[in-house]
Amino acid sequence: MSVTTSRRSIVRLLDSADAVTVPDDLAVEAPLILGLGADVIATLMRTPGHDIELAAGWLVVESGVRHREDVESLRQCREDDTDRVHITLRPGVRAPRPRAYVTSSACGVCSADILDLEPFGPDTPHTAGWTVPRSVLAALPDSLLTRQRAFARTGGVHAAAVADSAGELLVVREDVGRHNAVDKVVGWALLEARLPATDHLLVVSGRVSFEIVQKALACGVAGVVAVSAPSSLAVDLVREHGLLLAGMVRDGRMNVYAGHDRIS
Amino acid sequence: MSVTTSRRSIVRLLDSADAVTVPDDLAVEAPLILGLGADVIATLMRTPGHDIELAAGWLVVESGVRHREDVESLRQCREDDTDRVHITLRPGVRAPRPRAYVTSSACGVCSADILDLEPFGPDTPHTAGWTVPRSVLAALPDSLLTRQRAFARTGGVHAAAVADSAGELLVVREDVGRHNAVDKVVGWALLEARLPATDHLLVVSGRVSFEIVQKALACGVAGVVAVSAPSSLAVDLVREHGLLLAGMVRDGRMNVYAGHDRIS
Repeated sequence: MSVTTSRRSIVRLLDSADAVTVPDDLAVEAPLILGLGADVIATLMRTPGHDIELAAGWLVVESGVRHREDVESLRQCREDDTDRVHITLRPGVRAPRPRAYVTSSACGVCSADILDLEPFGPDTPHTAGWTVPRSVLAALPDSLLTRQRAFARTGGVHAAAVADSAGELLVVREDVGRHNAVDKVVGWALLEARLPATDHLLVVSGRVSFEIVQKALACGVAGVVAVSAPSSLAVDLVREHGLLLAGMVRDGRMNVYAGHDRIS
Repeated sequence: MSVTTSRRSIVRLLDSADAVTVPDDLAVEAPLILGLGADVIATLMRTPGHDIELAAGWLVVESGVRHREDVESLRQCREDDTDRVHITLRPGVRAPRPRAYVTSSACGVCSADILDLEPFGPDTPHTAGWTVPRSVLAALPDSLLTRQRAFARTGGVHAAAVADSAGELLVVREDVGRHNAVDKVVGWALLEARLPATDHLLVVSGRVSFEIVQKALACGVAGVVAVSAPSSLAVDLVREHGLLLAGMVRDGRMNVYAGHDRIS
């Protein structure tokens, strides 16, 4: 069992002039080193737990990994006081490249080419006639919140989930990094051989940036549901790829940025 | 004047069964390419505006740049429909290295060595006897909020500021990325020759992760004030370096994770 929260003694300043020393639970943040052959390919600052899924999900977005069989092995160990996952890819699968050196002369409004986006799976993220009830969308953030165990203790953790169109959360993962939380659920889906996640929804506790949409495309979901707002680029990208995007989902209200015709 | 928000037509689902099509302002997210010589060294997904500051602040954290004179020039242009900043460093200044390939056998609780942290400036982040009134700390998040112009329109933007111990905000910057917002104020401080920012505070609208503390150390502030919670590693790192850290600063209350003796 990984340690996801850690207690520190802190000083709490209350409404009055009082100051009390109390124990406080904090979300753990610690490095996870991803190794490929003899190389370190990434150091992720993450909340421990589901590290194999995190590595797997990171690979779906950053490399040519699209199916469970593309990964020969993911081996977790601890060296020099630091957690590591050693990755072995099936021969022929494109290895991750460091983002900082991604270059391309092609770019445009959506910037997808700059970041070398390789959308995963089918041309369409949902089967013909797929819809999701408005009531299901409205209930997803609360469903997520009730399963955010680390958030309840710390107030400082993001969460992500994969839901079906009946509103059932198939998997919920938490992390101090919102990208990591999404990578963990994508990794879960890869390892459970559930990719592409056609007709499913990615639910996130925070905002929707370009990178979150990129991860949604990589795992092939039909839409993204978020508690907060998306960026302009996130909206442009979901529209381009035909996904549903609902944001600011609070108290039964929501903004539908794309795919309104998919809501029944 | 950079475009920081962009309008899209969206569908708003209200309390009732009503659906209305309305214009909605979204935070712009677009790539900024940083070039050094002939190399692309980073692609930052950021909200346009203060791009030179963003590049400068990114350099303070990622390279050996510590003074304005370490940067020979920062030249902004637009090529192939994408914003770019071309960097020229003074000879002898350590260039940024891609994070993904940072390797080190040294690591430990704080993991600073793994990420090759080079704390900036003096051994202590504040002069002897430096204190800040509790009332100043309590007021900082509201001061920040009143100056978050893009947030007011979009609800989807983070902010960062540098404040003095009287509570005056010297600079406020917004961005879809919370790291970018901090880099912009650090870059402002570099270009204004205000580094190290001894006896000043870094104010952030979100959570405090390891990387935010890393940036605080790089610019030499005396403390960090945040609306949300820190991670365990963030707390350990500020304690190790003697910074003040106040989080969950809301409605006059706050948690003091480190440096309580600096609050008057």
